[in-house]
Amino acid sequence: MAKPYVIGIDMGGTNTAFGIVDARGNVIASDSIKTVKHADINDYIDELHTEITRVITANDAAGKIQGIGIGAPNANYYTGIIEDAPNLPWKGPIPFANMISEKFGIPCIITNDANAAAIGEMTYGAARGMKDFIMITLGTGVGSGIVINGQMVYGHDGFAGELGHVIVKRTNGRVCGCGRTGCLEAYCSATGVARTAREFLEIRDDESKLRNYDIESITSKDVYDCAIAGDKLAKEIFDYTGTILGEALADFTAFSSPEAFVLFGGLTKSGDLIMNPIKEAYEKNVLGIYKGKTKIMLSEMKESDAAILGASALGWEVKDTD
Amino acid sequence: MAKPYVIGIDMGGTNTAFGIVDARGNVIASDSIKTVKHADINDYIDELHTEITRVITANDAAGKIQGIGIGAPNANYYTGIIEDAPNLPWKGPIPFANMISEKFGIPCIITNDANAAAIGEMTYGAARGMKDFIMITLGTGVGSGIVINGQMVYGHDGFAGELGHVIVKRTNGRVCGCGRTGCLEAYCSATGVARTAREFLEIRDDESKLRNYDIESITSKDVYDCAIAGDKLAKEIFDYTGTILGEALADFTAFSSPEAFVLFGGLTKSGDLIMNPIKEAYEKNVLGIYKGKTKIMLSEMKESDAAILGASALGWEVKDTD
Repeated sequence: MAKPYVIGIDMGGTNTAFGIVDARGNVIASDSIKTVKHADINDYIDELHTEITRVITANDAAGKIQGIGIGAPNANYYTGIIEDAPNLPWKGPIPFANMISEKFGIPCIITNDANAAAIGEMTYGAARGMKDFIMITLGTGVGSGIVINGQMVYGHDGFAGELGHVIVKRTNGRVCGCGRTGCLEAYCSATGVARTAREFLEIRDDESKLRNYDIESITSKDVYDCAIAGDKLAKEIFDYTGTILGEALADFTAFSSPEAFVLFGGLTKSGDLIMNPIKEAYEKNVLGIYKGKTKIMLSEMKESDAAILGASALGWEVKDTD
Repeated sequence: MAKPYVIGIDMGGTNTAFGIVDARGNVIASDSIKTVKHADINDYIDELHTEITRVITANDAAGKIQGIGIGAPNANYYTGIIEDAPNLPWKGPIPFANMISEKFGIPCIITNDANAAAIGEMTYGAARGMKDFIMITLGTGVGSGIVINGQMVYGHDGFAGELGHVIVKRTNGRVCGCGRTGCLEAYCSATGVARTAREFLEIRDDESKLRNYDIESITSKDVYDCAIAGDKLAKEIFDYTGTILGEALADFTAFSSPEAFVLFGGLTKSGDLIMNPIKEAYEKNVLGIYKGKTKIMLSEMKESDAAILGASALGWEVKDTD
């Protein structure tokens, strides 16, 4: 018989959040630790074990955990290995699912963070009942989780769904963290917005509130604040960003013709400032047979819960050990 | 009990080929009629019925047909409707699966021609045993059929897999038959190769055997003949074409991380002339985690049989009517 709880873990480059989740998708308890604090992966796992065990005990959940699901950068669903994630403190391939499973004595499944978010959205969020949708996460980077015929797309090697690394500028594209140039992520992430701000301020000479900021440390939040205050150049930065994303989404539709794109992550807090240019560019660029069919919508999940819930849903997939 | 045969029909803008196929994928008999001959869809269906019935009777297959599978441009698997196919003589939506089914008294399933080719390749060709691959058809246009988790990708509306209409040139792109500009199809189809030849001949002034041809009527076959004869400019046309396709395939991998791309259609007869630049551009452009993992291969099916076999495989999907 299945046990009543699962653990969801969302590993980011800075923080790792975790929670105990019941079968209805209620986060019973949650907390977090610093990922960056540990240069040695074993120290990281030790602290994670200590903290999660504390929360399990405090909630009378010892012996009642069915499985552990983890969303982590560059995590491979098939192998359980995290492979060379550029934003994590540990280098080389890490057999993370096995390490966690052994430490806790509980079966563990991992997938990348954007896939975990997509699973969360399908199970508890805006994509409930959808069999074909694409989740786009707009944070420090751009991630994606693709669902087709009601199934996550993992690809033949477990690494499908890296839409942040589709090339949107074939010539003179920006350098991306992946080592190539012109990736979607270099334009449509929070850091991409900040780069656009710096570029616009350098090559143009019109007035802008953004000129009051230190150009080297401008953030997407600064651009948002200025745009909300009516700044024309700041608004144009969102138009530029949204247009590139809308054009890219139009191309993605030619692949899997999804019922919806669900957008998630920090940049979506900009609301219509980013959504309007995305929708406009999408409808203008999408192939005729797809026009007016695909929804572009915001995630319905609380950002703090979404990743934990998404990861936790994997915890129900583990084989029953009783 | 299933009957021993299916009918496969491959409807093209010019010809419609059909065949009787047994459960082992043997084409028992085949023939074709002219699609273009009939301005009225009902006349077309009448001739198709007469000719197929003749072949059925000649092969003692009356009453032994399980189902009819059809590959046709812009055909929707879910609805059975052909929607505004630009290369067919009939305008507006045509409920083709129902019309055929009623005329023959046999259940019928349709899908677009590239999907039919992918099903054929998965069932009988180079993609046997693969659960994740992408079929790219390089003919008058560029089509695609995508298989993920062992299933055809139809999308929420039945129109997924139009990779020929992904935008590869965002600025100053060529006008495409779909009404937009910069589509992959405008560069990497047989007609795209001919357009590249005309462009190169106009903007350059180096020697080429291609200058002996009437520039307005140059075909991809002419470019092939000149390249094989050692013509430098003709070879560069294939390099240009293959590079654009290789770059596009690298982006497609970021979507579904397929085990293989299977290339099919007239342009693939150019062999290494086109395959070498495709493979080179692919490996150069694909994201690091995918490097060296995905095969780019040629279809293993005879072009004349592939479409009939692929379409016929749909004939086995019909519900048993006995």
